Amino acid sequence: MIDFQADLQAIYEEMVGWRRYLHQNPELSFHEYKTADFVATHLRSWNIEVRQGVGGNGVVGLLRGSGDGPTVALRADMDALPIQDEKDCSYTSLTKGVMHACGHDAHTSTLLGIAKVASKRRAELKGNLVFLFQHAEEITPGGADSMIQDGALEGVDAVFGVHLWTPFPVGNVYSKAGPLMAAPDEFTIQIQGKGGHGGLPHQTIDSIYVASQLVVNLQSIVSRQVDPIEPCVVSIGSFHGGTSFNVIAETSALSGTVRTFNAELRLDVKQRIERIVQSTCEMFGAAYEIDYKLGYPTVVNDANEASRFFKVGTALFGAEATQESPLIMAGEDFSYYLHHRPGCYMFVGAGNVEAGIVHPHHHPKFDIDEKSMLNAAELLLGMALDYMA
Amino acid sequence: MIDFQADLQAIYEEMVGWRRYLHQNPELSFHEYKTADFVATHLRSWNIEVRQGVGGNGVVGLLRGSGDGPTVALRADMDALPIQDEKDCSYTSLTKGVMHACGHDAHTSTLLGIAKVASKRRAELKGNLVFLFQHAEEITPGGADSMIQDGALEGVDAVFGVHLWTPFPVGNVYSKAGPLMAAPDEFTIQIQGKGGHGGLPHQTIDSIYVASQLVVNLQSIVSRQVDPIEPCVVSIGSFHGGTSFNVIAETSALSGTVRTFNAELRLDVKQRIERIVQSTCEMFGAAYEIDYKLGYPTVVNDANEASRFFKVGTALFGAEATQESPLIMAGEDFSYYLHHRPGCYMFVGAGNVEAGIVHPHHHPKFDIDEKSMLNAAELLLGMALDYMA
Amino acid sequence: MIDFQADLQAIYEEMVGWRRYLHQNPELSFHEYKTADFVATHLRSWNIEVRQGVGGNGVVGLLRGSGDGPTVALRADMDALPIQDEKDCSYTSLTKGVMHACGHDAHTSTLLGIAKVASKRRAELKGNLVFLFQHAEEITPGGADSMIQDGALEGVDAVFGVHLWTPFPVGNVYSKAGPLMAAPDEFTIQIQGKGGHGGLPHQTIDSIYVASQLVVNLQSIVSRQVDPIEPCVVSIGSFHGGTSFNVIAETSALSGTVRTFNAELRLDVKQRIERIVQSTCEMFGAAYEIDYKLGYPTVVNDANEASRFFKVGTALFGAEATQESPLIMAGEDFSYYLHHRPGCYMFVGAGNVEAGIVHPHHHPKFDIDEKSMLNAAELLLGMALDYMA
Amino acid sequence: MIDFQADLQAIYEEMVGWRRYLHQNPELSFHEYKTADFVATHLRSWNIEVRQGVGGNGVVGLLRGSGDGPTVALRADMDALPIQDEKDCSYTSLTKGVMHACGHDAHTSTLLGIAKVASKRRAELKGNLVFLFQHAEEITPGGADSMIQDGALEGVDAVFGVHLWTPFPVGNVYSKAGPLMAAPDEFTIQIQGKGGHGGLPHQTIDSIYVASQLVVNLQSIVSRQVDPIEPCVVSIGSFHGGTSFNVIAETSALSGTVRTFNAELRLDVKQRIERIVQSTCEMFGAAYEIDYKLGYPTVVNDANEASRFFKVGTALFGAEATQESPLIMAGEDFSYYLHHRPGCYMFVGAGNVEAGIVHPHHHPKFDIDEKSMLNAAELLLGMALDYMA
Repeated sequence: MIDFQADLQAIYEEMVGWRRYLHQNPELSFHEYKTADFVATHLRSWNIEVRQGVGGNGVVGLLRGSGDGPTVALRADMDALPIQDEKDCSYTSLTKGVMHACGHDAHTSTLLGIAKVASKRRAELKGNLVFLFQHAEEITPGGADSMIQDGALEGVDAVFGVHLWTPFPVGNVYSKAGPLMAAPDEFTIQIQGKGGHGGLPHQTIDSIYVASQLVVNLQSIVSRQVDPIEPCVVSIGSFHGGTSFNVIAETSALSGTVRTFNAELRLDVKQRIERIVQSTCEMFGAAYEIDYKLGYPTVVNDANEASRFFKVGTALFGAEATQESPLIMAGEDFSYYLHHRPGCYMFVGAGNVEAGIVHPHHHPKFDIDEKSMLNAAELLLGMALDYMA
Repeated sequence: MIDFQADLQAIYEEMVGWRRYLHQNPELSFHEYKTADFVATHLRSWNIEVRQGVGGNGVVGLLRGSGDGPTVALRADMDALPIQDEKDCSYTSLTKGVMHACGHDAHTSTLLGIAKVASKRRAELKGNLVFLFQHAEEITPGGADSMIQDGALEGVDAVFGVHLWTPFPVGNVYSKAGPLMAAPDEFTIQIQGKGGHGGLPHQTIDSIYVASQLVVNLQSIVSRQVDPIEPCVVSIGSFHGGTSFNVIAETSALSGTVRTFNAELRLDVKQRIERIVQSTCEMFGAAYEIDYKLGYPTVVNDANEASRFFKVGTALFGAEATQESPLIMAGEDFSYYLHHRPGCYMFVGAGNVEAGIVHPHHHPKFDIDEKSMLNAAELLLGMALDYMA
Repeated sequence: MIDFQADLQAIYEEMVGWRRYLHQNPELSFHEYKTADFVATHLRSWNIEVRQGVGGNGVVGLLRGSGDGPTVALRADMDALPIQDEKDCSYTSLTKGVMHACGHDAHTSTLLGIAKVASKRRAELKGNLVFLFQHAEEITPGGADSMIQDGALEGVDAVFGVHLWTPFPVGNVYSKAGPLMAAPDEFTIQIQGKGGHGGLPHQTIDSIYVASQLVVNLQSIVSRQVDPIEPCVVSIGSFHGGTSFNVIAETSALSGTVRTFNAELRLDVKQRIERIVQSTCEMFGAAYEIDYKLGYPTVVNDANEASRFFKVGTALFGAEATQESPLIMAGEDFSYYLHHRPGCYMFVGAGNVEAGIVHPHHHPKFDIDEKSMLNAAELLLGMALDYMA
Repeated sequence: MIDFQADLQAIYEEMVGWRRYLHQNPELSFHEYKTADFVATHLRSWNIEVRQGVGGNGVVGLLRGSGDGPTVALRADMDALPIQDEKDCSYTSLTKGVMHACGHDAHTSTLLGIAKVASKRRAELKGNLVFLFQHAEEITPGGADSMIQDGALEGVDAVFGVHLWTPFPVGNVYSKAGPLMAAPDEFTIQIQGKGGHGGLPHQTIDSIYVASQLVVNLQSIVSRQVDPIEPCVVSIGSFHGGTSFNVIAETSALSGTVRTFNAELRLDVKQRIERIVQSTCEMFGAAYEIDYKLGYPTVVNDANEASRFFKVGTALFGAEATQESPLIMAGEDFSYYLHHRPGCYMFVGAGNVEAGIVHPHHHPKFDIDEKSMLNAAELLLGMALDYMA
């Protein structure tokens, strides 16, 4: 196997530079125009075959190795979030209200680093590397599915990806066989009651009462209706009804999310929510509309590739630093790649309590310990080379 | 007793004219400047002693009769509402977003009509008439209390007032002894939870869940805790929490109203609400703030003056048209006058289904059957003269 | 009008004796055999025409007066309750588990006293008196309806009845025109879930959870769905589900009562309960059975006869002691008589705080101030004679 | 390693005979007198050292091997359940209302079989076997803890146990490293309200309403307050309040169970339940008593001994039949042994759909596929011998 660690270390400062540039120039999901150009320009400069506009703003690079061997895809996501950067540092976002608050800038830079290093070692490469720079991971329908439909996985044998993760300490890496990240679904419920005078509730259908009772009734799905060993969340994120203290609200609107790991349960919960909404509204004579969107599927790692993670991780970082990941309630459209190819999604610790790097993802003060990029690059390239070996 | 009905009928068209002028020129509570001038100018033109700026924009007229006798006050309210007039007629509001949607324009015109008629018959009047043109009935703290504190009831022996009421048919009049209109209180509740990821509810305190459970818990006040023969309403008029389907809402805000007729119960309900809010929040570790405002007191008619209503009403409109009023869940700051003086508040039917006058008070298409003004004028003046007799 | 007060006072000790004998020998509803014989024997001894077995254990006595005139019925109920007497006095119940805990013993004795006195004054009586000694007031379907169907009201022009009432002080009497006592309905609800292991709720349908949610949902009828000025109660009196802490209960059984004064509302509430039960069960996949029994109708007094009450009461006991009754949430099958004939039901104060007579009806230590019997006799006979006059 | 499978197969019929004898003669927890004698008599007949009355009705056998080596304990539980046997077969329980509905008869017979076989092969045994015949597994505090305190684990190096399990098919075996079976806690809650007339709820504190609201509020623990990846159940198994449809229930009693796998969460849930009970009662002015009993700890298998299970199971039954167990929400006091010694608890499939052996544990028709005893004996003895090797 190629010894690539020194090469990666040698370009670490360059990776940090790319990352800070991208951090200052974030672009929202489905608007990653300059980021895609930035990526494509670099890839071409290393004589990597580039296809741009894959399934949207996706960029796919192909590095052909010298020897016969499998083709391994590595994926980074490129999009930022509609959050105002509140960090106090030299590389804060220059775009108002847009921020790389999830680390995709570092994912992109990490994968660029790998591409640069691998392009120098092409002669030793016993197979091909595909670099998937994906747009739009943050917003359904996401970019993964459209990139796959646009051929991004053609010829690919296995696919790997990482997420830098601040809840985990820098230095450690995490994954597991089977389900890893939840399927995140989304719904809105509009309760249509009948407005009226606050002192005459009997002439109305009180949509706030109906919706409140609904929120309470929905708790029973997780508490009574789902197998206790199956993780499941039903959360209402917003509730808006009424405009005046003394007028009964004609309508109330709820929105919420469901998180599951089991595909059967996922559809079962959808039906249970619909049944509870229907019955609660019928009980009080209200009407309703539900808009229920199934989001990304569960991220399910291949058992063999997860074993490879434990082997490669242990070799690179030691046994203690290579850990079984807990289930993560967040979602990821990396799941689509894993539907089509064996592979493994992994978490790379990026938090550092001593250095004050403690903010969760999507927080206005989110940052990473940049050394995590080096770990991520070593892990991803290590996985690819081990697969080829 | 003076025969005044013909006199009132003779100026009916003039009353309609005043009313339509006022309807086109509505002024919000505490901003009744032109209306007060309009009233004062007319009163002075009839040689009525006028005091303006009473407790705010209030206008008090004093008509001294010729003979010794009691002083009787008649009250009209003058303010309009922040509602956009949606009627299609010749006298719609000329002020955008402001409308006489409760009939105070007609109350004012009715009392002007009485003043004009009575000023002509001063020689026959065995006592004095006080005309209370009150500002700001629609918004707490209302104008009644400040007018009283500014001397509006000085020398007054009894006080009468009417509300034109479209839910009742024109031709009928209504009142009752004892409690007539509810005490309307108002509260806001701010639930302070702890925000977080929609898939990780255990790291949060879900303010929407807490507030929903609170809305459900509050139902028990009326259903379990209040004497079933005591009318009582606790309504939540607005519920606002959260901004995203997949983020647990850190705070949720409720507002609501309480309606009671019994002063002891009123304070008891306040305490019960506070206890339920406190316990519900403690149960889930949330914090809260309550802002609870006691509104106007209950309108409680004097038993003797209510008897007078039945006598006078029967004489004027017949026994069938003179009815016992049901309890009305709306509030009125006429209650303050009745705290200081014996008196009676009365409803004068102003609806007319055949004529399409069917919209409830505070509706954008609210209107009255204008003939109700004549009935109101006859009833009010009849009460005053009967009192003097 | 006959002056009968002295006559009644003269037999007061005899009435007390009858009452204490009956108190010691109570009989349950539909089992008033000895009580009926006791009554019939006494009536016959006074040459009153007696019909026994009327509609069950009912006894009807007819005292024909000497002059032409109307026929007035007076009613007393005779049945006792399945309660163990816990009083410490000389006349406690001799029958274990059965007790006159509602005062029907005294009602019966009072009416016997009237019958004896009136039978002596037959010559002066300008009309006829019918004595209705009714069985089974405590248990639906009650005895009133069957006695009426068996002719108890034939020839009767008006009907009066009283209840001795310990929440009111002895010396006072109470009634009102229109609705006086509630219609008491009764229901049982059986929730059929699916039992199972307490640690595996998802394999079950938790009938205790469903029934608890149902109890909570039912609160909304009174709090949100019924006109606040209409007294209405929905109470769940019993809830029984499950036998073990760690087994999910397959079934849970609820029973409850509804109290209303308005016949339309009464049926509306029944439908609302059924709808809430149905929707709550559907929401969680449970089945159910409802058994809903409409009980006695509302007691509604004739307006004229209620006026007579105020006149007669004032004459006998003074204006201050003759009061407007509040609405009473208890039910009475006297309502059936009032469906067929004009009449008035009245409360006679029987409590005496200073004498320790403070226990509510149906309490194991219930007793009355026996002087209330004299007041009751005067009021009932007074009403009858006034009607004849 | 000794080849013992043929020996066990040779006494299979004898094991079946013992099991059927015990099945017909079940004894309740803490009353296993004859069962203990039965066990002790057999052990002594095979020259095994026996100590009876260990920590109660426990029986400990010691079989000293010939060579030096570790001491391995194998455990079987002996008690039956208060369930009426409803099976239709030749060996139904002869004791009314008592039944081996959990398979402990077969556990005992399995371990007797092992003891007999091993006693014959003493010369080849490189270590000692301890046979733990435990009383009272079904009822807290269980027999395990008292047997340990009475020295049952003295000199023991490792401990193994099995449960025959009908939800799993005969032929398969199951276990896992770390948490395997839940900690089952138990609580009762007494809600003290204030009784009264069903039509006068405001004079009462309705314990059924309070308890129902409590059941609803408790749902939030699992739905909102516990990490979704931590299995947790809070179930109310019984709810009893009230005796009459028209009387508000003064008290209501709940009982329930909590199941967790995480010791910290377990105590956290206890506190959350207590807080919800306290706040719900305070909210409505009710009093309460909670009796909360922590039951057995979580069964947590040693990682090394779980690995041994996969090795031994695969060797005996094949890789496909040797499965990772899901978490089991039931509890087991085998957990106490694992607190003191490394070891592994295992499930042995005992269901057989084709043979109609489908009833869950604790069901009145519960039975096992008896061949599971042979598998269990092979697995247990295999684990012990592998440990010694």
